[in-house]
Amino acid sequence: MNTETQARTAGGREAQIVAPPGQPVVEIIREFEAPAERVFRAHVDPELVVQWLGPRRLRMRLEQWDMRRGGSYRYVHVDEDGTEYGFWGAVHDVQPGRSITQTFGFDPEPDNPTFDKAEFIDLGDGRSRLRVVSVTHDVATRDAMLRSGMEDGMQQSYERLDELLAEGTA
Amino acid sequence: MNTETQARTAGGREAQIVAPPGQPVVEIIREFEAPAERVFRAHVDPELVVQWLGPRRLRMRLEQWDMRRGGSYRYVHVDEDGTEYGFWGAVHDVQPGRSITQTFGFDPEPDNPTFDKAEFIDLGDGRSRLRVVSVTHDVATRDAMLRSGMEDGMQQSYERLDELLAEGTA
Repeated sequence: MNTETQARTAGGREAQIVAPPGQPVVEIIREFEAPAERVFRAHVDPELVVQWLGPRRLRMRLEQWDMRRGGSYRYVHVDEDGTEYGFWGAVHDVQPGRSITQTFGFDPEPDNPTFDKAEFIDLGDGRSRLRVVSVTHDVATRDAMLRSGMEDGMQQSYERLDELLAEGTA
Repeated sequence: MNTETQARTAGGREAQIVAPPGQPVVEIIREFEAPAERVFRAHVDPELVVQWLGPRRLRMRLEQWDMRRGGSYRYVHVDEDGTEYGFWGAVHDVQPGRSITQTFGFDPEPDNPTFDKAEFIDLGDGRSRLRVVSVTHDVATRDAMLRSGMEDGMQQSYERLDELLAEGTA
């Protein structure tokens, strides 16, 4: 890791979130100091994903993880006091190194899933951009998601992913 | 089947399609002369679905059909001249008799799936309403879908489903 990388990581690059008014859409853009292939792998390798996905205070337990076209996943985030938060989804498609398209649901809100398309784009010089477009079946669900604190959890997740990538283990 | 039912069926009830300008959303509303439970079953039972899904000129071959949370499906529509059109998707959730939430992709357009939520609503007197909300990751994909002739295929599908329900086999 060179000095410039350290400075950028320490500077806390933030994800940009675009939520067009009145549309059931959220777009997230985040850059990483690693090639697209490594950022992609951190999203599909179960041993890596448990090390960064979610806020720092939560432990992640995978119950099902089949990241390929027609597969599905299920995981539980466990809080410090043992409270569990379950999530599941179905995998529409995976293009290795390039994109993942999957649904995402939260146990208490089974009627309000999102459909997320993540694209991994190489920027050269060992850097890449992640672009995630999430759509819902109505604007109210999108707005509730924005109010739910998803942004904080997401920023923390991507900071943890920065660290994992900098360590060179992912 | 009573006379009123015959008259309505012969009248060719059309699905209403709502496509709000500039939004990646299509909403479809269609009523059926059958309770929600039977219309739902015609969507999940593989022996029934092949009898109505798609335009009349196409034969439907199921290659995979697992309509439950985390399941997936794949089918091929075969034209009279043997041309094949492949479709696949992942099943986010199924609430028996009430809703199906699934992705939908067309082989030549793997990057442009839809995410469809179908709700089956009883109207009493043996009638029901199907409401399908389809969302895409961008408006261009939604607009291309509307231009693709999906509406014709859909109207024919639902007429075939009317017939199947009237026969009493579904």
